[in-house]
Amino acid sequence: MKIALDAMGGDFAPDCTVLGAKLASQEISDDIKIVLIGKEDLLKAKLKEYDVTSPSIEIFHADEVIEMGEHPTKALSQKPTASIPVGYGLLKSGAVNAFCSAGNTGAMHVGAMFTIKAIEGIIRPGIAGFVPKESGGFGVIMDVGANADCKPDVLYQFGEIGSLYAKHVLEIDDPKVGLMNLGEEEQKGTLLTQAAYQLFKLSKKFNFIGNIEGRDLFNEKADVIVCDGFTGNVILKMAETFYDLLEKRNIKNEFFDSFNYEAIGGSPILGINGNVVIGHGVSSAEAIKNMTLLAIKMAETNIHLKIKDHLGD
Amino acid sequence: MKIALDAMGGDFAPDCTVLGAKLASQEISDDIKIVLIGKEDLLKAKLKEYDVTSPSIEIFHADEVIEMGEHPTKALSQKPTASIPVGYGLLKSGAVNAFCSAGNTGAMHVGAMFTIKAIEGIIRPGIAGFVPKESGGFGVIMDVGANADCKPDVLYQFGEIGSLYAKHVLEIDDPKVGLMNLGEEEQKGTLLTQAAYQLFKLSKKFNFIGNIEGRDLFNEKADVIVCDGFTGNVILKMAETFYDLLEKRNIKNEFFDSFNYEAIGGSPILGINGNVVIGHGVSSAEAIKNMTLLAIKMAETNIHLKIKDHLGD
Repeated sequence: MKIALDAMGGDFAPDCTVLGAKLASQEISDDIKIVLIGKEDLLKAKLKEYDVTSPSIEIFHADEVIEMGEHPTKALSQKPTASIPVGYGLLKSGAVNAFCSAGNTGAMHVGAMFTIKAIEGIIRPGIAGFVPKESGGFGVIMDVGANADCKPDVLYQFGEIGSLYAKHVLEIDDPKVGLMNLGEEEQKGTLLTQAAYQLFKLSKKFNFIGNIEGRDLFNEKADVIVCDGFTGNVILKMAETFYDLLEKRNIKNEFFDSFNYEAIGGSPILGINGNVVIGHGVSSAEAIKNMTLLAIKMAETNIHLKIKDHLGD
Repeated sequence: MKIALDAMGGDFAPDCTVLGAKLASQEISDDIKIVLIGKEDLLKAKLKEYDVTSPSIEIFHADEVIEMGEHPTKALSQKPTASIPVGYGLLKSGAVNAFCSAGNTGAMHVGAMFTIKAIEGIIRPGIAGFVPKESGGFGVIMDVGANADCKPDVLYQFGEIGSLYAKHVLEIDDPKVGLMNLGEEEQKGTLLTQAAYQLFKLSKKFNFIGNIEGRDLFNEKADVIVCDGFTGNVILKMAETFYDLLEKRNIKNEFFDSFNYEAIGGSPILGINGNVVIGHGVSSAEAIKNMTLLAIKMAETNIHLKIKDHLGD
C-alpha cells in the first residue's frame, strides 16, 4: 500500500512534512510506503538533514508548488506539475491508495473534483471534521467548510456518508446520527434543518437520533453530527480555539488534548473516488504524522468504495 | 427605578428567584426597587423562609404561571394573569423600567412582540448573548436564537443594535463589529454572509472590521459579533458547554469562569420598546442576581430609547 504525502504543502513544508513522514514511518508496517511528492533534490537534502533512512519513505518528483494564497482553479491549470496535481494524478492512476496534503485547501478540493471526481450520485462531496467525545474517541462532523450553503438532500447524504465513515473508519457500531439544530424539537430550527429533519426521520440508511444542540457536541448523543459547512466550520474553529485558550493558560488535561488539531491531523474529503485528507496550513510534524496515519487507515478500510457501494442501498 | 422580576419563572422558581432578588438587593442603591411578580402568598412565605427583609424588594401579585413547556401564544392568551403577561403589562404602562424572567423563553419573546412591540423600523428584534473576551470583559453576539433564518438587512440591523448596546451598556468606545463567517475574505461564506458583507462595508453607522471566524470569538478582533440566530445559538451553547466540561474536571480559571452562564445571567431582547432580559431555565440564585443587575444596567442607560433614537440616523 502506498500513501502519497504532499511534501511541499503547509506553512512549514518541507521540514515538517519530512519530519512528519519520519514519525509516521516509525509506526507503520513494512508493506506500507509513504511517497513524498515534491522537488526531488530538496527532499533528498531534507531527508539527509533529518537523518531519515527508513525504507518506508520514497520520493516522487514534482516540479512546482501551489502556494497557500493562490487561486485554486488558476493554480491547478497553470501548474500541472505541482505537488497537488501530481498527487491527484498518482491517486487517479491507482499508483497510490490515498493522498494527503496540508497545502492550499481550495486546490486540494478543486483538484479532487476535477481529477478523481465525486462518486456518481453524490450531490456534493463534503469535508469531515472530528470532535472529541467525553467517553473517549472521536465523533464525525460533516460538513466543516466545503459547502457553506446546503440543501436538505445534501445534508441527508452527509448523514449517510458520515455514518459509513464512523462505522468503517472509527469502528463505531450502528453510529448515532444527529442533526445540529438550535433546539431538540422536530419543528425547531431554520427552514433547512426543518426540511432536513423530515428526510432524516424517514431514513432507513442510518440511525437518526434527532436534533442535537451546541451543548451536545462532546457528549454521547450522536457519533455523527450533520450540519452545513458554514456551521461546521464555526464549530471546528471554535473547538480548536478552546484548546489554544487552555494551552495559553498552561491547563493540561488528557480530554482537552484531543481538541488539539494535531491529534487527528487532517480532515477527509468524503464522497469522492479516492481517499483524500486535507491538513491545517500550520501543520506541525506531529500533525503531518497523524494526517498520514489517518490516510493509511482510510486506505486500509477502503472507505471511498464503501461509500460508493452503499449509496442508494 | 423599578425592575420587574418574574418570580415564578425558571426551573427552580420561586426559591432561586427570591434568593436571587435578595442577592441583587444587597448590591443596588436605595432608589432601585425589585418587583417580584408572582403568587403573593407564596412569595411572602418564601421571603420569610429566606429571611428577606430588604425594603428594595416588593411583590406584585400574578395569579397564574406559564409553565416551561407550554406553547407561547396559547399560554399567553389563556393565562392573561400569569407572571409573564403581568410583567409585560407593568413594563408597557411604565410602572417598571425593565422586566426579566428565567421562565418560558418563547412566551417572553412572543409577549414582547405583542405588548411592548418592536421598535418602528426594526425588521426583526433579536436576542443578544455575551462572549467573554481574553482581555477581560465581554463582547456581544447577536442573534442567539430568536431568528434562525435571517436576511442580509436583518443582520445589518443586528450590527447597528449590537454596536449601540456595546457602546452604551458595555461602555465600549467605537465598538468593532465583525461578521461571523468561515473565512476572512470578502467573497467567502454563504449567500447570506456574502450579501451581508456588501451592506456592512458601506455602513457609516457602525465600525465594520470585516469577517471574523470561529477562532476569533474570544479575541480582540470584534466587540460585536453578528450572525443569524441559528449560528449564534450553536456558538452560545458550545461556549457554555466548555465551562461545564472544565467544571466537571475541576479545572478552575478566572477567564473560563466567565464562560459560566451565571456570570451574566441573561440575554436581552433588543429592538423592542422596553428593556427585557431572558434568563436560562436552569437559573440559580446567582444567575437571577446577575440577570436582575443586567436589567438594571439596561434601564439606567435606557438602551431601548438609544436604539430607537439612532435608528435611521
